Amino acid sequence: MTYASKLIEEAVEALSALPGIGKKTALRLALFLLKSNEAQTEQLATSLQKLRREIQYCQQCHNVADQELCSICTNPHKDPSVICVVENIQDIIAVEITGQYRGLYHVLGGIISPMEGIGPESLTIDTLLHRVENLTPREIIFALSPTIEGDTTLFYIAKKLKPYPVRITTIARGVAIGSQLEYTDEVTLARSIAARTPYQ
Amino acid sequence: MTYASKLIEEAVEALSALPGIGKKTALRLALFLLKSNEAQTEQLATSLQKLRREIQYCQQCHNVADQELCSICTNPHKDPSVICVVENIQDIIAVEITGQYRGLYHVLGGIISPMEGIGPESLTIDTLLHRVENLTPREIIFALSPTIEGDTTLFYIAKKLKPYPVRITTIARGVAIGSQLEYTDEVTLARSIAARTPYQ
Repeated sequence: MTYASKLIEEAVEALSALPGIGKKTALRLALFLLKSNEAQTEQLATSLQKLRREIQYCQQCHNVADQELCSICTNPHKDPSVICVVENIQDIIAVEITGQYRGLYHVLGGIISPMEGIGPESLTIDTLLHRVENLTPREIIFALSPTIEGDTTLFYIAKKLKPYPVRITTIARGVAIGSQLEYTDEVTLARSIAARTPYQ
Repeated sequence: MTYASKLIEEAVEALSALPGIGKKTALRLALFLLKSNEAQTEQLATSLQKLRREIQYCQQCHNVADQELCSICTNPHKDPSVICVVENIQDIIAVEITGQYRGLYHVLGGIISPMEGIGPESLTIDTLLHRVENLTPREIIFALSPTIEGDTTLFYIAKKLKPYPVRITTIARGVAIGSQLEYTDEVTLARSIAARTPYQ
């Protein structure tokens, strides 16, 4: 009875089910929509419905797509001989934003994690092997999180890729640009010393 | 083209139009909805649409309502002889949560602010006077923000209420409970000394 209206209560309930949005923020959003013009709410509601109903996943790389193949796989300016393996769709966006990579992607849809019951069979490893077999790329870059799960996944897939004549690399791990050495954790620092690179 | 999908782009656009939600959060919300089951997105979309299409405003106090009168005005346990004047609907919720007030409310729908072009005529002052005239309440409590605009609004309405035999009060202003005197601003402290109350 706190909100004086069942409609507000339901909207707050639905909004606060989103990650990072509590009841107070949800109420603020609901009251904001009530104050702004009706077209805004309609647009928000229909864009979310359309997103959920019409989204497709690229049959080649499992990225989100509006058609059978995603806009990256169909882009003629991308280099199909390099495939960057990532955990999820956000990672593609993160790599694309850097503007430093011109190849294709492969979305695993997760990472091997026995603790959470995610085994290799729940990931898109089979389609990756299929791609490697049929399209014979030159290089596979693994851009997975530098965690135990990431390393396990890398190890597992690299073993599966052994029979194929493809170069396997991982993105560089070391101290982050702009960070200060004294605040870098010892594992990262130790590893970045072991993996030092020649200057120029 | 960063998002690889027009549908995601549109959803991010609509979500990031909400207050306090930037592009990154909007993307996180959109991808969360894509991962969770479809019923959740449908429920969110329809609850927002329903909220905007079906919401009504109480004809007596201008609170949000599902019928002609809101759930507070129709509540028989509320004391109709006291009216608390607030700026907006959030303020009703804030007062209701305290559990310390058993009267009715009146939502002004804003506060007099010449800087933002809000004059007395855009507020629901006429209906308040109408309520005072017809229902002869015992007391009107002003619970407006302790700002220049709040004080101006209070001054204006109090003058209009002068002809009526009604007690006019404002909520107490002073140092906040739990705050420390040395960090209290001087205006508040000066005012709380001037408005000191007898001990017990």
